[in-house]
Amino acid sequence: MKTRACVLRAREDVRIETREVGEVGPRQALVRIGAGGICGSDIHYYWDGGIGAIRVVEPIIQGHEVAGTVEAVGAEVVRVRPGDRVAVCPSRPCGKCKFCLAGLQQHCLEMQFFGSAMRVPHTDGAFRDRMVVEEFQCEPVGDGVSLGEAACAEPLSIGLHAVNQAGNLMGKRVLVTGAGPIGALLIGAARVAGAQEIVALDVSEAPLRAALAMGASLAIDGAREPGRLEADYSADKGYFDVAFECTGVGGVLKQAFPVVRPRGAIVQVGVTGSADIPVNALVGKEIRLSGSHRFHSEYAVAARLIRERRIDVKPIITETLPMERIEEAFHIARDRRSQMKVQLSFAS
Amino acid sequence: MKTRACVLRAREDVRIETREVGEVGPRQALVRIGAGGICGSDIHYYWDGGIGAIRVVEPIIQGHEVAGTVEAVGAEVVRVRPGDRVAVCPSRPCGKCKFCLAGLQQHCLEMQFFGSAMRVPHTDGAFRDRMVVEEFQCEPVGDGVSLGEAACAEPLSIGLHAVNQAGNLMGKRVLVTGAGPIGALLIGAARVAGAQEIVALDVSEAPLRAALAMGASLAIDGAREPGRLEADYSADKGYFDVAFECTGVGGVLKQAFPVVRPRGAIVQVGVTGSADIPVNALVGKEIRLSGSHRFHSEYAVAARLIRERRIDVKPIITETLPMERIEEAFHIARDRRSQMKVQLSFAS
Amino acid sequence: MKTRACVLRAREDVRIETREVGEVGPRQALVRIGAGGICGSDIHYYWDGGIGAIRVVEPIIQGHEVAGTVEAVGAEVVRVRPGDRVAVCPSRPCGKCKFCLAGLQQHCLEMQFFGSAMRVPHTDGAFRDRMVVEEFQCEPVGDGVSLGEAACAEPLSIGLHAVNQAGNLMGKRVLVTGAGPIGALLIGAARVAGAQEIVALDVSEAPLRAALAMGASLAIDGAREPGRLEADYSADKGYFDVAFECTGVGGVLKQAFPVVRPRGAIVQVGVTGSADIPVNALVGKEIRLSGSHRFHSEYAVAARLIRERRIDVKPIITETLPMERIEEAFHIARDRRSQMKVQLSFAS
Amino acid sequence: MKTRACVLRAREDVRIETREVGEVGPRQALVRIGAGGICGSDIHYYWDGGIGAIRVVEPIIQGHEVAGTVEAVGAEVVRVRPGDRVAVCPSRPCGKCKFCLAGLQQHCLEMQFFGSAMRVPHTDGAFRDRMVVEEFQCEPVGDGVSLGEAACAEPLSIGLHAVNQAGNLMGKRVLVTGAGPIGALLIGAARVAGAQEIVALDVSEAPLRAALAMGASLAIDGAREPGRLEADYSADKGYFDVAFECTGVGGVLKQAFPVVRPRGAIVQVGVTGSADIPVNALVGKEIRLSGSHRFHSEYAVAARLIRERRIDVKPIITETLPMERIEEAFHIARDRRSQMKVQLSFAS
Repeated sequence: MKTRACVLRAREDVRIETREVGEVGPRQALVRIGAGGICGSDIHYYWDGGIGAIRVVEPIIQGHEVAGTVEAVGAEVVRVRPGDRVAVCPSRPCGKCKFCLAGLQQHCLEMQFFGSAMRVPHTDGAFRDRMVVEEFQCEPVGDGVSLGEAACAEPLSIGLHAVNQAGNLMGKRVLVTGAGPIGALLIGAARVAGAQEIVALDVSEAPLRAALAMGASLAIDGAREPGRLEADYSADKGYFDVAFECTGVGGVLKQAFPVVRPRGAIVQVGVTGSADIPVNALVGKEIRLSGSHRFHSEYAVAARLIRERRIDVKPIITETLPMERIEEAFHIARDRRSQMKVQLSFAS
Repeated sequence: MKTRACVLRAREDVRIETREVGEVGPRQALVRIGAGGICGSDIHYYWDGGIGAIRVVEPIIQGHEVAGTVEAVGAEVVRVRPGDRVAVCPSRPCGKCKFCLAGLQQHCLEMQFFGSAMRVPHTDGAFRDRMVVEEFQCEPVGDGVSLGEAACAEPLSIGLHAVNQAGNLMGKRVLVTGAGPIGALLIGAARVAGAQEIVALDVSEAPLRAALAMGASLAIDGAREPGRLEADYSADKGYFDVAFECTGVGGVLKQAFPVVRPRGAIVQVGVTGSADIPVNALVGKEIRLSGSHRFHSEYAVAARLIRERRIDVKPIITETLPMERIEEAFHIARDRRSQMKVQLSFAS
Repeated sequence: MKTRACVLRAREDVRIETREVGEVGPRQALVRIGAGGICGSDIHYYWDGGIGAIRVVEPIIQGHEVAGTVEAVGAEVVRVRPGDRVAVCPSRPCGKCKFCLAGLQQHCLEMQFFGSAMRVPHTDGAFRDRMVVEEFQCEPVGDGVSLGEAACAEPLSIGLHAVNQAGNLMGKRVLVTGAGPIGALLIGAARVAGAQEIVALDVSEAPLRAALAMGASLAIDGAREPGRLEADYSADKGYFDVAFECTGVGGVLKQAFPVVRPRGAIVQVGVTGSADIPVNALVGKEIRLSGSHRFHSEYAVAARLIRERRIDVKPIITETLPMERIEEAFHIARDRRSQMKVQLSFAS
Repeated sequence: MKTRACVLRAREDVRIETREVGEVGPRQALVRIGAGGICGSDIHYYWDGGIGAIRVVEPIIQGHEVAGTVEAVGAEVVRVRPGDRVAVCPSRPCGKCKFCLAGLQQHCLEMQFFGSAMRVPHTDGAFRDRMVVEEFQCEPVGDGVSLGEAACAEPLSIGLHAVNQAGNLMGKRVLVTGAGPIGALLIGAARVAGAQEIVALDVSEAPLRAALAMGASLAIDGAREPGRLEADYSADKGYFDVAFECTGVGGVLKQAFPVVRPRGAIVQVGVTGSADIPVNALVGKEIRLSGSHRFHSEYAVAARLIRERRIDVKPIITETLPMERIEEAFHIARDRRSQMKVQLSFAS
């Protein structure tokens, strides 16, 4: 069987090509992909040919935020059946390295992550009409949500994983800097985790709107009110119990230190090469700054939260185009003023 | 009653002056100071007139690492008696603010810390022959150790507090960057806490020697072998479970990231204004970078560890001068090649 | 000024008496009580003259679950103003003992808790028309909820405190045994904290109904289906991440062990003298069994969750009588088949 | 190749039989066993035909506390070479079940543990002259300790695992009830982990002596002074931060509750069917009672602590007999008054 696939061949060179679907193994499933979200990394691969040290050096099928419908299953599969609508987890840890055997699969030494150029040869992704995946990658989402919503399970997992780094959020005061798709979904996750108050900071219209829609108590426009965060929240050594930094911008990370309370936490979600941090505040207030990388057990939780509509992800989906217009999608997705998540739809 | 005191009047202007000892309240003790260690902050106050934003703006009695002998006690005192040899804790939290009532006394909003210019008016310190202190500041050290050793309870507390930030060290692999007095004592603390292997990094002879004397398995001279740490310890995403950064030098902090394992911890002990950190490593390895500020309950533990000789602090005391030679002591203390802790002795 | 008060003089002897209201100190408020919930301990005091070793040995004003309207405030009060509707926290820790200074106010050595016979002289409670309380005991609840709902802040706090013992509940599988007022409110708290699935176990109609109303996924009637819990949830060493035991019945606690997974937690909320536990399961599965006692910071969180209607407590309020019918209320409250929380209303 | 082995055929029926050694696979090692400790479970198997629900239903080679010398290794082995002296870890988790992939190998659903009758067919143990083991089971112990000492790595691991359940012990006050081999080694582990004060409780001479030899500050003879523990350590809601209960006797567990402070921990190490606990104390003091089961990563740590003599285990080895006298060893081992660990020696 053949399938169409979105193959990035080089910077600004993405093509629809035909590939073999391949055999369905005994513990695998054939999934007809319905929707796929374009992630920041996909955009960087397309426009910049990589992110930082990670470079696209060979053709790669892009895409790791997908959902679809099971068409066939292998003989030993028990979790899903043909006809089931599923979110597809893009992560395939080896299950054998020291990190997998410590329950830290996100740090697997042999990780295969859909559409990632981190390793060479690259791992192909899921922007294709049909695809064979492992049984354990399939999370049923029922019939009550769209496949576009289901495809948000991946970025929501990242938000949930970040929330889990912070521990119990019940009754806590939370700051989220950067309310793009990850930040906005993280706001939803923090709300579900019992956060009492969530203040969002961004500089663009769409994210500020999405932040409120996802459960923020207040959305501050840092472009219009650059000094407000510190003015309002730095008294008595700081107001917030936890800050989630989702911009990956050093200057924004720095702003979190005066407004986080002593022994509070800053969870860094956004990635960048390096950033300057105020060590005197880190030490003087004993702040805990920790990174959050991808997710593992959170994927199943995310799929269920979407399935049960405990988190409504619709406010972050701003555009959907058919897969053959992926190039146009990459153009649209760059407009942070109006766009949050741009998704592709696939042949049904 | 009168006492001599070491008063810093301005940069490079320290004088021996006479002060009133004052009354001994019902829950206070009069202590005849025997020994006092010169801390990095004392040195900065003397040579630079402050540290960073903290400026000496009025005369201040210096000193916060002292031990002595109780001469008299107030009517309600039960923990010590005249004749007891005690380490004197320099910290007096208010006991009423929200941080004190959360068990976070080191973040007290009204902290009185001996010899600190952080607040104005400054809090006078303990470099004096006689001094009235609170009962709760007195930790008995018995008769088996010198008062010079007992005076190391304060810097050892800082090491213990840092160790406590890292959690259980039993069987762990530990890196300590910077083996000055704090770092070297921290090595002793990490060893007592069960660390399996402790690698120290410094660039000077005295600290490298002290590191080994305090329990390091290996002391790397970063000046002679600048690439060795990364070469030997960065395979498979990093070797160390915990790194304690005691230099306060951004370039050294950065070196910890490649050699700390995923989900490992970096505890920042040394202070500086700001530093550049590799955010991609922080996030990609989910490293937890946290600051450690002073101490609280650790002071009593430190005094007991010294008293019972579970930690022998003698290797870090490199020089002792009478208080009237404090100026000379400030000169000597600057020589990191040969000096670790320089102490003052007081009139008996 | 005078006020009426519900005074328990001895077993089955409660009377409406007149008492002085007293002066309003500078950091105190005069509150006109509107509603007060009858707690299990109130019922035990009335019917049994105490609970276990705690005996009512002198007249005591009962009541610790109350809400009302501020009528006057002292000169230094800033948190509330006359006219504010408030939930009144019944807990007055001393703020000076070692537990208060460790942030463990619920273990205060000199705790004054409204309507408690634990200490002699007993601490009078809040079943009265008017009462002077400390400013810090007042939590504003706004105008959107009834005072009856606001009075549920106290039992909800107990649920929140138990949830906090268990740590992060996001995505977790939770068992709640005993769905009386505490258990049912705890279900609401666990739901707000992100629990994925909550199974409730009880043997009476009203609690089973309330459990579902508060957010349980399933309510098992242990009287009708005594073996179902173990049959459905003990495979592969157990299903639940956390169990909250709210009955205080040893036989029920024992049922939690087979269905909690290895390294899972059982939080004991219900009190009894002693109980038999399966040590081989505790050890073999490394289960963590911990007690949860009252609350501290959770009271403010509870008041806010009720105020913002993130938890709707109405399903647990089953009856309201005027204070002068308190004796009748004690009779009604004993009927677990139909009653959850019975409340008193006071003179307006 | 043939080897002698100690085979338990039924209650009080242990025989020396001859068995095939078997092939050495590519990642396996052939070990000539030098010493093997007799554990409480071995004794129960011999005298009672099992422990509680675990019954010996078929012939089983006993023994799981062994050390020896590597004689040959498979082609892919890198950790050890012929001639290396090693402690042999008796635990072989499957590496594939959900617990192994969560870093909880001690709860492996398919665990193969040397000499255990928990599963049928039983897993043969290590009381034999020669044995093929996995590479990952071999922990080098160097040439500075006897193989008898090295064989104590297993019971020491159990102590270390228990210590790890309690978290950071630095500066803590510790109670250990039951100072048999496990309790005594646990005392050594707690000391290495930085415990400030360790009080041991037992009723027999040998354990009380061993407790002091391993680092206890005080050993209370509960037979002679039955009320002393509570009398000395229950003021102000309790003295100890952590209690390790190693007797498996319900009446002893109960004694821990009054002397453990609020929010303190009791780690249950000893196993029994069931025990009565004071729920009011568990709840009122929010004590955390958790079980500790076997070990995983602790084995390597234990081997290293013994190798480096940071823990001297010699005080607990009270008798050594050649393997052919195993029956006599089972008789001797029952005398708790004079015996701690009885070991077997094997043919060299």
